Amino acid sequence: MQIIEGTIASPKGFSATGLHAGLKKEKKDLGVIYSEVPANAAAVYTTNQVKAAPIYVTKEAMADQKIQAVVVNSGVANACTGKIGLANAQEMQALTATHLKIVKDTVAVASTGVIGKQLPMETIEAGINQIDLQHQEPYAFHQAILTTDTATKEIVVTEEINGQTITMAGVAKGSGMIHPNMATMLAFVTTDAQISEDLLQEILADKTETTFNQITVDGDTSTNDMVLVLANGLAENPVIEKNTDAYAKFLAMFQLVSETLAKMIAKDGEGATKLIEVQVVGALNETEARLVAKKVVGSSLVKTAMFGEDPNWGRIICAVGYAGSHTDPGKIDMWIGDQQLLKHSQPQSFDEAIMKQTLEKEKICITVDLNIGAQSGKAWGCDLTYKYVEVNALYHT
Amino acid sequence: MQIIEGTIASPKGFSATGLHAGLKKEKKDLGVIYSEVPANAAAVYTTNQVKAAPIYVTKEAMADQKIQAVVVNSGVANACTGKIGLANAQEMQALTATHLKIVKDTVAVASTGVIGKQLPMETIEAGINQIDLQHQEPYAFHQAILTTDTATKEIVVTEEINGQTITMAGVAKGSGMIHPNMATMLAFVTTDAQISEDLLQEILADKTETTFNQITVDGDTSTNDMVLVLANGLAENPVIEKNTDAYAKFLAMFQLVSETLAKMIAKDGEGATKLIEVQVVGALNETEARLVAKKVVGSSLVKTAMFGEDPNWGRIICAVGYAGSHTDPGKIDMWIGDQQLLKHSQPQSFDEAIMKQTLEKEKICITVDLNIGAQSGKAWGCDLTYKYVEVNALYHT
Repeated sequence: MQIIEGTIASPKGFSATGLHAGLKKEKKDLGVIYSEVPANAAAVYTTNQVKAAPIYVTKEAMADQKIQAVVVNSGVANACTGKIGLANAQEMQALTATHLKIVKDTVAVASTGVIGKQLPMETIEAGINQIDLQHQEPYAFHQAILTTDTATKEIVVTEEINGQTITMAGVAKGSGMIHPNMATMLAFVTTDAQISEDLLQEILADKTETTFNQITVDGDTSTNDMVLVLANGLAENPVIEKNTDAYAKFLAMFQLVSETLAKMIAKDGEGATKLIEVQVVGALNETEARLVAKKVVGSSLVKTAMFGEDPNWGRIICAVGYAGSHTDPGKIDMWIGDQQLLKHSQPQSFDEAIMKQTLEKEKICITVDLNIGAQSGKAWGCDLTYKYVEVNALYHT
Repeated sequence: MQIIEGTIASPKGFSATGLHAGLKKEKKDLGVIYSEVPANAAAVYTTNQVKAAPIYVTKEAMADQKIQAVVVNSGVANACTGKIGLANAQEMQALTATHLKIVKDTVAVASTGVIGKQLPMETIEAGINQIDLQHQEPYAFHQAILTTDTATKEIVVTEEINGQTITMAGVAKGSGMIHPNMATMLAFVTTDAQISEDLLQEILADKTETTFNQITVDGDTSTNDMVLVLANGLAENPVIEKNTDAYAKFLAMFQLVSETLAKMIAKDGEGATKLIEVQVVGALNETEARLVAKKVVGSSLVKTAMFGEDPNWGRIICAVGYAGSHTDPGKIDMWIGDQQLLKHSQPQSFDEAIMKQTLEKEKICITVDLNIGAQSGKAWGCDLTYKYVEVNALYHT
C-alpha cells in the first residue's frame, strides 16, 4: 500500500469541486463530489436523536445504496429547522441532481454549521448552479466542508489488488464550526474498487467502531455527523469477496484511511495543541479495551493534565476505574511514551527529563495494561485548553 | 421545618472538631465527628473500581451499621497506595478509637487529596492525639475536610416530629483538591432522630439518586467519594417507621439537606462562576428525566455557553438528543429562566434584555419539556471556565 498526494477525486471516475456560495463571509462553503457512474455506497450517521434535515434526505437516498453525487454546505447545519428545513434539504438534493443531470435519489446531502437557522436557498441555488466539474478544483471541496477546522484533512492511498491499481481517498472535517455549536464530523471516502454495497456497509460499520467512534473532542455528539463511502468500481478489479487476499488488502486500505482521518479530526479539536492516543491492552475483550481508552482520552482532568504537560497518572487510573469495564484495581500498569508510571497500580520512578520531552511533543501516547486479558483497543483525543473555553464561550448566538 | 445556624455538631449528642495536623502547609487538615453513643449509620461510596484505602476500612466498619466516630483528613487521598495505604487507613482508625476510647470498628475513615502518596503517619498520629472534643470547634471540622473548595458547605435543619425536636446537620466538601486531581465529594450528615439503620440506608440510597448523583463538575468520578449518615437517636422520638407522617417529615429534612449540599458542591466546582440547574419535565420516567438533565448540565459545550452567558439552545437540544432517553426530537420545549427558546423544537423569539439579565446571574435555570410523559428530574452543575483549565493544567504532580 502506498500513500500518495491527491484529493477526494483521485480514484478513477470521480471529480469534485468547491466554491464560495455566500453562506460564510469569504471562505468556501459549498462542494460537490461526483462519480461518472452511480457508486455502491455505505453510510453511518449520528446516533443523536435530534438529527439534522440532510441526514433524513441522505438516508432516503441511501435506500438502494447507490449514490452518484454528494452535495455539502458549511455555515448552516440545517438542524432544528422543522418542515421548512427538510424541504430545503430535499430542494438542495433536487437542484444538484438537475444541475448534474443525474437521478435525484442518487444525490446525498450533508450540512455543517450553526443550528436552528434555515438555509438561504437562493444562495444555495446560485452556488449549485456555479458548480463546474469540467473545471474541477478538488482541493476546494476539502476546504468547502470546513468550519473552524484549522486545516484540511485528507489522505489518498493506492494498492495493487488482483493486478489492478485501486485508489482510495478520504476527506473529513472535524471539531469546530464557524459559529461553534458542536463538533460535527463529516467524512467522505471514495474508491474505484469493485465491491458490493453490502460488504462495503459491513466494513464501514465495523471500522467505524475502531476509528471514527474512538475519537472524542468534548464528548458531545452532533446532530449532523455522517461518514459516507462511495465505490464506483471503475478500477475494474474482480469484485472483492469476503475473506480473500483482496478483501484483506481493501480492509487495510480502509483502516488506514479511516484511522488517519479520525486522528486528524482529534488533533484539530477546538483549541487543541496536542493529539492524545490512548492504547489499552490486557483487556477481557476489544469492546472494553476501546471503552476504557475512550474514557481516559475523554476525561477533562486527563485533557487538562496533558495541556499542562503533567504526567498525572492519578487522573488516568481514576478514569480507568470509572470506565465500567472489567478491571482488577490492583493490577494496572501504565506508561506515558516509554516511561512506566505504574506497575500493578503502584507508582514507579521514571526519568523526569525524558518524561518532560515526551509531554512537550504534539502527540502523546498513553498505554494502560489492565493485565486481565489479551485484547486491546485505542482511542484518540486532544488536550483541553484555554482556547477551547475561549472558542466556545466567546461566541454568541 | 426550619433552617437554623449551626454545625455538624448541632444535633444532640454530637461533637466535632478540626485542626491543622501538618498534611497541608497551613490550613486545617484533620477532623473528627463523635457521637456520645454509637449511631445507626448508612453510607454510599464511589462507584469507581479504583477505590481509596479508607473506603475499604469504612465499608468494613459499616458491616453492622453502627458508627460512633468519623475521622477525616485532607491533603492526601490515600488512593493507589497498596497494602501500606490500607494498613495506614486501619492505623488511622485504630488511633482514633484509642484516643476517643471507643471500639475500633465504630470508627469510619475518609481521606481526600492527592493520589498515590502515602499518609504521613507520624503527622496523622500527632494530629489525632491533639483532638480535644471537650474544647470542640465544630466549624473547624467543616474547614478541615476542604481541599480547593472556596467555601465551607453546611446546612442545619430542625423539625417537630411526634412532639420532639429533631435536628439534622450536613457538611460536605466538593470539587477541588490542594493538588487538583479530581472532584472528590465527601458528605456527612448527623441527626439525633431515632430511626433504624436499614430504613436510613434505604432513604440514603434513594435520595442519593436525586441529589448527590445528580451533580457533575467535570464528569470524573473520584476514588474517594463517600456520603455517611449518622442517626444517634438521642432526640428520643418514637422510632421513625416507614410511610408515617414522621417518615414523611424526616424524608423532607433529608431531601433538603442532601439537595442543598449537592447544589453547594456544584456551585463551588473548580473555577466555576455559576450554578446551573437543569430541570427536565414531560419525560417517560424519572430515571430518564434525571439522565437527560445530567447530560445537559455535563455538556462541555453547554457549560462554556453558560460561562459566555449565551442562550445557546442548539447545544442544549443536542445534549438532549444524545442523552439516550426516549425523546421525540420534534416535540422539545425549552426555557432559560422564564424565557421560552424552543417550542416543539422550533426557535421562539424572546426578550433579549431579560435573557441577558437571566444569564448574568449566579444561578441559571434551564428547563426542558420532552412532552412525551409526566415525569421530571433535576441535575446541577457549573460553568466551564478559563479558571477550570488553569486550576487543572497548571498543577504539576
